[in-house]
This record gives sequence, structure tokens and C-alpha cells, in this order.
Amino acid sequence: MKKDDCIFCKIANGEIPSDTVYEDEMFRAILDLSPAVKGHTLILPKQHFDDLLTADGETLSAALKLAQKIARAQKAALKCDGINVVQNNGEAAGQTVHHLHFHVIPRYADGEKIVTWPQLTSEPEEQKMIAASIAKNL
Amino acid sequence: MKKDDCIFCKIANGEIPSDTVYEDEMFRAILDLSPAVKGHTLILPKQHFDDLLTADGETLSAALKLAQKIARAQKAALKCDGINVVQNNGEAAGQTVHHLHFHVIPRYADGEKIVTWPQLTSEPEEQKMIAASIAKNL
Repeated sequence: MKKDDCIFCKIANGEIPSDTVYEDEMFRAILDLSPAVKGHTLILPKQHFDDLLTADGETLSAALKLAQKIARAQKAALKCDGINVVQNNGEAAGQTVHHLHFHVIPRYADGEKIVTWPQLTSEPEEQKMIAASIAKNL
Repeated sequence: MKKDDCIFCKIANGEIPSDTVYEDEMFRAILDLSPAVKGHTLILPKQHFDDLLTADGETLSAALKLAQKIARAQKAALKCDGINVVQNNGEAAGQTVHHLHFHVIPRYADGEKIVTWPQLTSEPEEQKMIAASIAKNL
């Protein structure tokens, strides 16, 4: 299903032009218009899902295999040193377009980190409680 | 196949204890010992792959469905506002352990961004050339 007011639905389904890297019946992969680095690619399912939490299994089982294809092609084409795959859910996570998408971003040894976080110290007892709490909700 | 000197092989296969959130025949999901935020979970395949580029299709088609399960459980257990899924390949991308893994990180509206990048301006002609170059290597 497409969603009428969703720009990524329109791009994925070819109603708005894009620099398309790859297309099949499920996905379109395009260059990001405002890339973190040259070659920054977005994988868009043609079907609308707001995010990972609401996506269907068929889409999820195909998406990473496509990310692998794109990553390998970026390595070959751009001679990058590494690749970040990022998928954001919700505004608190930096998601700006609410249509499931995957960023596949070439990285270079001399580039700035784009994924970085503080490494907190964890308390063993608290970790056990958190693990149990997540496990109980699976 | 496991790799003898790989710490994530040992953790995934239960040779080193961990705060396990989930386990099946393919994966173990554990709490990160130095979390970006409480509940930060790592998905580790039991089989060794250095990264996304060298992973097998079976692992990739199952991994995101598991990430979805973990993300949903984090939402339910931790009442987080969003979730980042991050997968790093190569030191240039911030990968520190060279065993394929996925970070599933709860995010809160008042939290600091952990995934952020400059948004470069792209030149239409250059984008077309880059897209063609990646596409040719698919």
C-alpha cells in the first residue's frame, strides 16, 4: 500500500524523479539529495511502512540483502574504507521522513565519525533487570 | 563457522557469559556492556562473518526480523520514544569488533543524537555519475 501524502512513496514508485541506483519490484535505492558523503544511498521499500516496528517480514528479509549489494557496489565504485548502515525510527532517533528507509553510507579513514555515542558504565544488577524486562516483552 | 580468536563468537555461542535478551539457533542478542543508553542491545550471529559485506543471505534475511522483535520489546519494556538501528563495517565506520553485529538502541526525546551527519549539497550532474558508477557495480 502507498500513502498519499508520503514523499518517499512517490519517489520509491517513480512519481518523483530521483538518482536511482537500483530498482526491483519491492525496493528503489536512490542517492540522498543531501548526502552525508558522496554516494550516500537510501533504500526505500515501494510499500509504505512508517518504520521498522510496523514493517512486514517479507520487506525485512529482503532489505539487508539489498543493503549488502549496495555496500559491495559502493566499495567497488567509490573505493571507500568502510560503510555505515543506519535505520532510524521516530523523531527521537532522528527519523525525518516517516517511511521506512535504510541509509547506506560510504566511509573513509580520514572522514569524521557520523555514528558516535558515549559508552556508559553498566551496573551488573541493573543490566540483569533490563535484560529480563526486554526478554519478557519479546 | 566460528573464529577462534573472536570475542563475539565466544559470547554468541555462550562460552563467555552475557546479559542475554534473546537466543535462537542463529543469533544471540545481548545487552552492550558499555551502552550508549540503558537497554542498548547487540544482535550477534552465532556464525562468524567479519561484516555485512561477507555475511550469508540466510543470516541477513533473519537479522532484521529479529531487530524488529527487539525494537518492539524495547519500546514495551523501556517506554522509549524512538530506536536507532546501526550496523558498522570497517574501522572507518567505527566498527571495533570484527564480527557482524547490529546495534538496537533505545532513544528518548530529550536524549542527545548519536547518529548525525552534515547534509552536503549535491550537484545534479555529479549525482548522475555517482549513481551510474554504483549501479554498474551491482
